[in-house]
Amino acid sequence: MGGGFGGLYTAKALANTNVNVTLIDKRNFHLFQPLLYQVATGTLSPADISAPLRSVFSKSKNTKVLLGEVSDIDPKTQQVVMGDQSISYDTLIVATGANHSYFGKDNWQELAPGLKTVEDAIEMRRRIFMAFEAAEKETDLEKRRALLTFVIVGGGPTGVELAGAIAELAYQTLKEDFRNVDTSEAKILLLQGGNRILPHISPELSEEATSALQKLGVVIQTQTRVTNIENDIVTFKKGDEVQEVASKTILWAAGVQGSPMGRILAERTGVECDRSGRVIVEPDLSIKGYNNIFVIGDLANFSHQNGSPLPGVAPVAKQEGEYVARLIKLRLQGSTLSQFSYNDVGSLAMIGQNLAVVDLGFLKLTGFLAWVFWLVIHIYFLIEFDTKLVVVFQWAWNYITRNRRSRLITGKEAFVSPQTINDSNPYKATETRRTVNV
Amino acid sequence: MGGGFGGLYTAKALANTNVNVTLIDKRNFHLFQPLLYQVATGTLSPADISAPLRSVFSKSKNTKVLLGEVSDIDPKTQQVVMGDQSISYDTLIVATGANHSYFGKDNWQELAPGLKTVEDAIEMRRRIFMAFEAAEKETDLEKRRALLTFVIVGGGPTGVELAGAIAELAYQTLKEDFRNVDTSEAKILLLQGGNRILPHISPELSEEATSALQKLGVVIQTQTRVTNIENDIVTFKKGDEVQEVASKTILWAAGVQGSPMGRILAERTGVECDRSGRVIVEPDLSIKGYNNIFVIGDLANFSHQNGSPLPGVAPVAKQEGEYVARLIKLRLQGSTLSQFSYNDVGSLAMIGQNLAVVDLGFLKLTGFLAWVFWLVIHIYFLIEFDTKLVVVFQWAWNYITRNRRSRLITGKEAFVSPQTINDSNPYKATETRRTVNV
Repeated sequence: MGGGFGGLYTAKALANTNVNVTLIDKRNFHLFQPLLYQVATGTLSPADISAPLRSVFSKSKNTKVLLGEVSDIDPKTQQVVMGDQSISYDTLIVATGANHSYFGKDNWQELAPGLKTVEDAIEMRRRIFMAFEAAEKETDLEKRRALLTFVIVGGGPTGVELAGAIAELAYQTLKEDFRNVDTSEAKILLLQGGNRILPHISPELSEEATSALQKLGVVIQTQTRVTNIENDIVTFKKGDEVQEVASKTILWAAGVQGSPMGRILAERTGVECDRSGRVIVEPDLSIKGYNNIFVIGDLANFSHQNGSPLPGVAPVAKQEGEYVARLIKLRLQGSTLSQFSYNDVGSLAMIGQNLAVVDLGFLKLTGFLAWVFWLVIHIYFLIEFDTKLVVVFQWAWNYITRNRRSRLITGKEAFVSPQTINDSNPYKATETRRTVNV
Repeated sequence: MGGGFGGLYTAKALANTNVNVTLIDKRNFHLFQPLLYQVATGTLSPADISAPLRSVFSKSKNTKVLLGEVSDIDPKTQQVVMGDQSISYDTLIVATGANHSYFGKDNWQELAPGLKTVEDAIEMRRRIFMAFEAAEKETDLEKRRALLTFVIVGGGPTGVELAGAIAELAYQTLKEDFRNVDTSEAKILLLQGGNRILPHISPELSEEATSALQKLGVVIQTQTRVTNIENDIVTFKKGDEVQEVASKTILWAAGVQGSPMGRILAERTGVECDRSGRVIVEPDLSIKGYNNIFVIGDLANFSHQNGSPLPGVAPVAKQEGEYVARLIKLRLQGSTLSQFSYNDVGSLAMIGQNLAVVDLGFLKLTGFLAWVFWLVIHIYFLIEFDTKLVVVFQWAWNYITRNRRSRLITGKEAFVSPQTINDSNPYKATETRRTVNV
């Protein structure tokens, strides 16, 4: 279950075999999450980075796509519960991914939205562009400064990519578009808990990324922890020094936690979860006591390779999915497979329109070359579904025109005066957020 | 006020002149409405047919774009009221367009949504694709038939274009994608009040269109009036014969009425409105008693050319906007302009991927040639904003692949079981609809 990278690649690897595959997802499309930040910053449309699951598998007659949400699992009778119907399985692959973690401060979710779903991206896009609109109308200098201050919490790839994209928006794309406000006065603040951004790549490269972001105009604060978010004010601690920043647009790119299915699985099977709710899996990605239940992708904690769990990135989910598919096919032939091992393809992060960092271990790239490489890699993965060409084209187009075609302000307060952004109460808002959309 | 075709072309014609222009719209983008049906049927993304108003006018320093909704007008003090602020004007151009008319049956709006805004298109897209998803799960044959029955009310361009696009979806694009249901069993019903579809074009062409749609599989009922919509059942009268059809997807492409600004204008200035709420304008598009207030586009009733009001189409709004701009410039030179007259550019309608009808009076086209012509014309207008190339490309791409990239099911019930579509009560639903989005 799950149409993300894990589920998608498992089903792809099992396409047109003698295995009956049922792919369950609550959405009718696969989302290419690594590019979601480009939707949030108005470069791409959601459909550009989505593939309808049915069209991906239309040629594979042994694959059945079901739209719906799994509410429970019964490992004894080998069934998953989906609304009023139950579906029985021989082998179950759980790939329901991860959600944002606000470290227990769940009320921060509405104050500082994260970036996991299309709805999240649309909401971020609305807040970012609405902030500029509100600033254009705002006469109070204090308030205007808060509207032009963007705080990004978390210095991983998503945080870095958001910071870079917003910097380009404020300092380049939108500069000519406003009459009362100078968007280049905008302040973009990137807060990172660790002692450097992009901790998953080499120190030299993360230093390169730091100076590149600073050149773009982003202010980076490392070893900084957010202690409070309230009334459009972010409070954070650097060592013992406490700082406050007034900002109308606070974006969350920090912690993640396994999706609720992990807990359900734990209750039903007794399998262990780690502190961030990820399921501890066996060397073959199955769970203790149930060799016909696999957990892959962001929901899985696989620590059999180097002690620490594999990162929650697309390549890991893809390789895990393909491994499980291979294992299932071999089992049908009475054979089996040695333990899963991740072949690290390296990591990359986009900083600006012609700026990225690439760390393949043996090869380290920065600047334009890295940007092209980043582009090629992503295109290569997008090739998996038909949006590829369109996205390449739009990229080229946006790159040449330095434009943001997709900066539509839509969503919950789309129709009301900008001043009222963030004034809505968390509960009501969280409610409506589920209906804010593509 | 208004960023539609009327407002946009007025402001464009006044760009970089010595006139100070303030363009007020409640959205931050111009929407190319003629292609909205392609968003509703999953071919294009909203951003593909939208242009951020600020980027359109970024180079014109005398043009100021304001995001907000005008709530009132005071012709005495020459001010428009926008939330808590008032903006004074020398000349006011009202181009707030039209909304759907349900002929007094306003509760039909939720049961049979229309197609005016991006939100409408997303909602239609959700209903159309959700119906197929629900049918795939439905075991009851009766209910499945209702899910696979699409009723389009209104045989104008929008109704025809929707019917054609849905026919292509059901009979071509989606045919391979489902396992339990055969989408080619779908029934598409087009109901038209008059005695032929596309009444605005020549009888021969509307006959051509009729047979073309029928070849695609659309069932057309002319001289048919909808008398009731209730519990997913459409009741309609053809002569004295009453028919009922069970359908989960009823789409409205029938009447329109002037936007509320028309009534406000009437109250404040005493100007007359026609039965469908359009403002009766003078030969120079100003309103009686106020030669510095103009009404253009769908909100205007201009009957000085051939007795009957000009149709509510983009070319009329465009020419009216350009006329008013010219008049304003001439007045500043102490000169004036003879009355407005519409130069009819003819009318066209898209039927299928390579099928359209074009009526230029002197030239009538059908089939592939007309389709190409239709494409060229629309591209020509899209050239006005930067999405042109992207749209051409996506079209070509979708045309070659016969694919629907943008068929994302999003919006209010995106997360819940398909069975529950349309079960929400009208009021709650209408509420949430305003937040369903791009």
